[in-house]
This record gives sequence, C-alpha cells and structure tokens, in this order.
Amino acid sequence: MARMPKEHLEARRRQILDAARRCFIRNGFHATSMQDVLTEAALSAGAVYRYFESKDDIIAATAAEALAEVASAFEAHDTTEPPDLDNIVDLVLGVERLPLSGSRESAQLLVQVWSEALRSPSLSAKLKEVMAQASGVVGALVAQHQQRGLLPADVPAEHVADVLIALIDGFLVRRAVYGHADSAAFRNGMRALLSAPAQAVR
Amino acid sequence: MARMPKEHLEARRRQILDAARRCFIRNGFHATSMQDVLTEAALSAGAVYRYFESKDDIIAATAAEALAEVASAFEAHDTTEPPDLDNIVDLVLGVERLPLSGSRESAQLLVQVWSEALRSPSLSAKLKEVMAQASGVVGALVAQHQQRGLLPADVPAEHVADVLIALIDGFLVRRAVYGHADSAAFRNGMRALLSAPAQAVR
Repeated sequence: MARMPKEHLEARRRQILDAARRCFIRNGFHATSMQDVLTEAALSAGAVYRYFESKDDIIAATAAEALAEVASAFEAHDTTEPPDLDNIVDLVLGVERLPLSGSRESAQLLVQVWSEALRSPSLSAKLKEVMAQASGVVGALVAQHQQRGLLPADVPAEHVADVLIALIDGFLVRRAVYGHADSAAFRNGMRALLSAPAQAVR
Repeated sequence: MARMPKEHLEARRRQILDAARRCFIRNGFHATSMQDVLTEAALSAGAVYRYFESKDDIIAATAAEALAEVASAFEAHDTTEPPDLDNIVDLVLGVERLPLSGSRESAQLLVQVWSEALRSPSLSAKLKEVMAQASGVVGALVAQHQQRGLLPADVPAEHVADVLIALIDGFLVRRAVYGHADSAAFRNGMRALLSAPAQAVR
C-alpha cells in the first residue's frame, strides 16, 4: 500500500470510528459486525484492518472517546470561585455542555460502555481511572463548599462527591434509556431537594 | 415427551433461567450462546427449547425478572406516614432491601438490561412501564413531603421524583460498574447534600 500523509491517515481513522459509532448506537457493540462497519464506512476490509485489528479494537477506541467526553465535562468546570450551591447543580448538569450536551447518543454509548466493562477487565480499568479523576474534581469542589459553610463539614467530601457522580450517571441513564432530556426540570428538582429545610433531616 | 406435573415444569423453567442469569452476568447477553446456557443448566437442547424458543426469549424473561426486582423495591415502601426527609434517603437506598439488597449481580444485570433496551423496542417499552410506576410511587411520597413543608412546594413533585430516581439508577451504576457498595457512606453523602443551608441555593 502506498504511503499516505499523516492527515489522511487521521481522517481515515476518524471515518472508521464515526461509522462504527453510528453502528454501535443503532445495534449495540455485539450485534454489530466488522462487515457492518465496513459497509457503513464505505471502505474495504483492507482499508479498515490497517487501522484496527479487530472489532474489539474499534470498541476500545470508541469507548475511550466516550470516556474522554465525560472527563472533559469535568475538566471544563471552573472551581476557582464557587458562588453558591448552584455550582453543584451546574456541576451535575455539566453533562449539558459540549461535548456531551444535547446528545442522547453520547449517553447511549456510555450505557453500552458500562455494560461492556462488566465483561472487559481492560475497559473496566479505564472506566475506573476516568471516574477516579472525576471524583477528585468533584470532591475538591465539595471541600470548598464545606470550607465556606455551604455544606455540612462532618461528612467526608468524597462521600458527597460520590452522590453527585451518581446523580450525573443517573441523569445520563435517564437520557439514554428513557429519552428524557429536560435538564431545566431536572435542575428544578435538584434545587428543591437541596433547599429542603435542614432540620427536616435528622 | 411425557407430560410433567406443573411443579416440575416450573422448577425446570427456574433451572434454565438461573443458569442463563449466571451466564449473562459472566459474559453479557450477546457473548452468551444458547449452548452456553444448555451447558450451564446441564440440560439438553430439547429440554430447553420446550420452554424458550430462542435466546431472545430467555433474555426477555431474565430482563422481566430484573425489572420486577426493581419494581418490588418500590412497592415495599411504606408511604403512609413519612417521618421526615430520612424517608427520602431510605427510598433511594430501598435498593438495599431484598431482593436487590447486597447483590452486585442484580445491578449488573440491570445495566445490561438498559443497554439491551437501546436496541430492543419491546424491552424499552417494558422498562418505561416499570419506571413510570416507580415514578408514581416516588412522586406521591414527594408530594406528601411538600404538603408537610419538608420540601419546597413550588416545584412539581414529579421533577423531584425524577432526580430521586436518577440517584437510585446512579447508585446501581456505581455498584455494578465500579463495585462500590458502601451504602452507609452514600447515605451520609445524601444527608449532607439534603441538609445544605437553604439560603445557599439561590
């Protein structure tokens, strides 16, 4: 095969991953065959196998991109001066920002990644690594709020962070599985819960 | 085939579903073959096909059982006299009660059901039905709390219920995917969030 410029190689790889992503969202990782990906990408087997040895390689690359989207939703968050608890609501709904914003498909892919991680130790390890990073970012924000008296300080920050991450995951399940994507309603629901009278919780 | 008493038929069906469940948890719905299920159940193909026409039938029956577990976690909840907001924490952690209690496997199966529902319209419909029922139960509890002044009344009860259900789903993701099952820590995290000073949320 003739040598191709780097940009061309990148573009071709992108073309394969985009086609695979469409197939995966439509039919799931397992019901998608390598032939489905070839057809969707309008490429020959030779062209695809130059980039990916197997469907598992494509799944791994697709999952890595999905996880990078999640990670970037956290990285983008400004933790320097949290104004109030709305910051925490915003953090959870940070999944509304690019690149995850408005994309039911991204959420659907993430649900598939979770499912696949149950049987793939390497994917499971990658997933845990990304979530540990996210946990660190969220935990730091919680600690800031605790220092400013906006959250009870007698609970470890990471326990609160875990609940917030569960909320994010649950929001994504909701969008992926049930097709509910009304983040304004979700924001109102969260604010109502967070502004419950303190004395009501024993 | 000779006629078998009803109890025997039920026991055989149970034997197949238990074997399938073990296979599904180990390898996922799609990487599990009908032959895997036969081997795990130590039954002949004839014995299995008498009960289930295809692997899809077994997946559907397994998913229905997983959803019934979730539904029963809500049904069991006593909504007659909510003492305080702890009730809401308890509701979310109702997944700690039987039949879901302590079972990472049940949570793992549920993640697989979500993933499968993305490509199966019938499973998706069933899932939405179960969640609509759960939503009704949780919404009624939220409305009671609103009437008693324990939650702000200016937000529709169903929006708060949606957030609580997202918390439940997120807790199950956490347990299934990350293997974190410390419900005492989660409870503390939830209580800290719920007891944030009301004025901190603008």
